[in-house]
Amino acid sequence: MTRQLRAVRTRQALVTAAASEFDRSGYAGAALNRVCRAAGITMGALTFHFATKGELASAVQMQGLAITRAALADLPAGRVPALHRAIDVTLELARLLEEEPAVRSAARLSRERPDEDLAWSMSWIAALQDLFGQAYRDGQLHAAVRPEDLATLSRFLILGAEDRARAEGSRSGSEPREPGAVEEVRQMWGIIQRGICGPSRGEPA
Amino acid sequence: MTRQLRAVRTRQALVTAAASEFDRSGYAGAALNRVCRAAGITMGALTFHFATKGELASAVQMQGLAITRAALADLPAGRVPALHRAIDVTLELARLLEEEPAVRSAARLSRERPDEDLAWSMSWIAALQDLFGQAYRDGQLHAAVRPEDLATLSRFLILGAEDRARAEGSRSGSEPREPGAVEEVRQMWGIIQRGICGPSRGEPA
Repeated sequence: MTRQLRAVRTRQALVTAAASEFDRSGYAGAALNRVCRAAGITMGALTFHFATKGELASAVQMQGLAITRAALADLPAGRVPALHRAIDVTLELARLLEEEPAVRSAARLSRERPDEDLAWSMSWIAALQDLFGQAYRDGQLHAAVRPEDLATLSRFLILGAEDRARAEGSRSGSEPREPGAVEEVRQMWGIIQRGICGPSRGEPA
Repeated sequence: MTRQLRAVRTRQALVTAAASEFDRSGYAGAALNRVCRAAGITMGALTFHFATKGELASAVQMQGLAITRAALADLPAGRVPALHRAIDVTLELARLLEEEPAVRSAARLSRERPDEDLAWSMSWIAALQDLFGQAYRDGQLHAAVRPEDLATLSRFLILGAEDRARAEGSRSGSEPREPGAVEEVRQMWGIIQRGICGPSRGEPA
């Protein structure tokens, strides 16, 4: 029992350290000895738990998927209109990308080692498509806007959030002058909802 | 002279092969022996021209920057309003990302080995900021839309175009069912200009 508990803790410490390493350096650039050092665990213990770099990466991706699924399941549905629930999903994804190295890692590794079963987007794309479809049926969207276009736009915003979150991580904590990923995505939705060409500053609104 | 010409051609063949390799595998994942095989050049010749992987990557990044600067310089200015010229810049960048491995490589390597002097965005971000600023002063933008927000939105669209273009490259050429990066960015701008919430399908426009 105690030994099992210790094994679980060791495994978790390795996945946590690996999440930061894969997020920063990518799959090919990740160094297992750095993971061991960060986790305070020997290379022997690492290879006992994860025979290959691929197994360790898959464990990180599964954790990123699990964290994302759990966070989205906890979002309040209630009476909120579908369009706003869809936007809340993208804001929650941006928050996870900012705060959870395992989620940033899952997003990056999904591109660097494609595998349908571990693709990070599988944890959110269907929910977004459903909500945008509902928003369309509810008449929340301009007639000319197709739900699938908003799913594409969301994918772009989430890529931008990942890029911004990773850039923040690599900057020294002492210089957080720019808006974070969540704030940036929120601003973009404000623009996208209103449209950029509305009443121009010249004319009366 | 002939020897010089041969050297120039060898160098160019190496940079061309390296562009595809860095685009597909990233900096850490790129294998110099694959570059030699693709270029039909010996490892000895490669190390004669590029002493390190970093030198080869920098040469690819400089080519990506040069291609991008030249393409944007060729865009017609004429009487086109600033907002539409800014959108044309993003569409041209999406086209370059689709068609030029050196440009996709420059975009990817700019993230994987940050270096102010070689950052791919340096070849277009200032032009975009100027054009959006001009569009604002010309009253082309909604009063509540800040030019810097449109520069951020453009950055997101260009990241999405890069991701789409790389995914297309990795797919077998026989299955080009989805719209390409340029078409996708064009569709997104259509939505962003109009806004998504306009007159809902229920009410009369």
